[in-house]
Amino acid sequence: MTTTRVLVTGASGFVGRWSLEPLLARGAEVHVVQRHAPPTTAGVVAHAADLHDREAVESLMRRIKPTHLLHFAWIATPGVYLTSLDNPLWLRSSLQMVDAFLANGGSRVVVAGTVAEYDWSAGVCSERTTPCRPATLYAACKHAQYEVLERWSAQVGFSFAEGRLFWTYGPEESPERLVPGMIQASLSRKSFQLRYPAQVRDYLHVADVGAAFSALLASEVQGAVNIGSGEGVALSRLGEIVGEETGEGLIIQPGDASANDPAPLVCAETSRLTRDVGFTPRYRLEQGLRDTVAWWKEQWKAHGSPPSSLTRPESRMQA
Amino acid sequence: MTTTRVLVTGASGFVGRWSLEPLLARGAEVHVVQRHAPPTTAGVVAHAADLHDREAVESLMRRIKPTHLLHFAWIATPGVYLTSLDNPLWLRSSLQMVDAFLANGGSRVVVAGTVAEYDWSAGVCSERTTPCRPATLYAACKHAQYEVLERWSAQVGFSFAEGRLFWTYGPEESPERLVPGMIQASLSRKSFQLRYPAQVRDYLHVADVGAAFSALLASEVQGAVNIGSGEGVALSRLGEIVGEETGEGLIIQPGDASANDPAPLVCAETSRLTRDVGFTPRYRLEQGLRDTVAWWKEQWKAHGSPPSSLTRPESRMQA
Repeated sequence: MTTTRVLVTGASGFVGRWSLEPLLARGAEVHVVQRHAPPTTAGVVAHAADLHDREAVESLMRRIKPTHLLHFAWIATPGVYLTSLDNPLWLRSSLQMVDAFLANGGSRVVVAGTVAEYDWSAGVCSERTTPCRPATLYAACKHAQYEVLERWSAQVGFSFAEGRLFWTYGPEESPERLVPGMIQASLSRKSFQLRYPAQVRDYLHVADVGAAFSALLASEVQGAVNIGSGEGVALSRLGEIVGEETGEGLIIQPGDASANDPAPLVCAETSRLTRDVGFTPRYRLEQGLRDTVAWWKEQWKAHGSPPSSLTRPESRMQA
Repeated sequence: MTTTRVLVTGASGFVGRWSLEPLLARGAEVHVVQRHAPPTTAGVVAHAADLHDREAVESLMRRIKPTHLLHFAWIATPGVYLTSLDNPLWLRSSLQMVDAFLANGGSRVVVAGTVAEYDWSAGVCSERTTPCRPATLYAACKHAQYEVLERWSAQVGFSFAEGRLFWTYGPEESPERLVPGMIQASLSRKSFQLRYPAQVRDYLHVADVGAAFSALLASEVQGAVNIGSGEGVALSRLGEIVGEETGEGLIIQPGDASANDPAPLVCAETSRLTRDVGFTPRYRLEQGLRDTVAWWKEQWKAHGSPPSSLTRPESRMQA
């Protein structure tokens, strides 16, 4: 990938920022665009533009002429993004951006999709065989983006792939999310509420997620590719490992045991990622959580206490 | 439906306008909203509002307090709508509108969906078993609307259905569309180009489509309901009937016979419409086309010649 010029959107986000070093390590010329962009990573060219502003995006594409587009930018505010009416705006702006990218000679587009596109009754989700059934406006708009780019790329002849993110954890994750919540509960010796402790999910360290996107972009693989570990972990076991890594343990308060979990297991089938893209994760879960706990302990030391918010908002369709 | 107060959007559109009389015939209080609204139908209350303007829509809902919402409004410009970036805007504005409708006590929402939501490799499309696979931005946004409203209605407890339109024809259809194109070609004794004359589609007269939406709104049926005839007709046979009804015949110029039609047959399975909603179409195809030809002949007489445009733009993903 020595002659590629990559434009990364959402490069300051939790996942996006972890794609930059792997892209640089592959020899790519890396550009990032943010609304207000101070350069944050050595070797990366930062640009400022509002991605909802069509003219600004067209001007940006004319200046950079990226060969590759790695598109993470989207509304992601915890507790808000699933139902936000900004989702259709991001769908619109994303397609507008791809249009400008292609008009300036761009050849390969990789976007961030989501496990939430799948019908979760499937359990183990395969890109080829599992039907999609988005349950939120967020997932519906991400899936609409996928459907349109897939057909569009086949018609016009550009190269397109979507990395479908499963569950991600790691340093710098928003404190409202599950793993940071568990770590902070453990460090402050509070119990942690978990509605379905037996629920099994597929967690991958964010450094691996970023590297997987970089590998996917560098590959010629087209269509949907699951970005996951391929291994399930019960959330109760996740809490147990967190407790071991903090050294403080973690007491889990389960929800009503009679409640029926509508999606007891959701994991990624990852043969496309491992075989077609040729990517293997570096972190095992224990090691990745050790890393993450260490980061939170440093935060604690630096700031005197963990961030106050331990609440995790329930998903909902609309306000 | 004697105590229902219905708000119809897109009531001046080809399909929407045919829903008004059937709604009035059921005893509903009928309101329509348009950007610039002159009252067009006796007994209908017309309101002016831009549906993309959140505050205007909220104010409208507060004033009318509709119990039922029948939502046709969407971008529909022939040759443009399939790929227009206005589609995500309509998705956004539609959800915003439903939010305002519910906040003012609304209880039942029916929206116009499309056969284009389905995976056309299925042939005969059933709401229960045929997978969806939108091929255009238009279909992807309509399907996103469906997915979101279906889940949202189940969570919040309002009543929701989507009428999935198959192919529609009738008086006042846009001259760029298939049936008007055939009629005008026949009346002006020109040959008519048809890439796949053997292609089978499901055509329903627009008066029946309007009445079907009215019946669906009045029913308690939830989820997707196909709005079609349940019968397939080859496009060459459609042209033949048109030629019989004009009395002038129609010469069809077929496309390359070796070209493979990717979707040779797309028809509606209509047991939900006929059995669950209890709707039966009034028009058979011959009678409906006679009706439509008569309308075009009147136009011809009144204006001296048919509208000039006989081109039918090909579908494409993006400009």
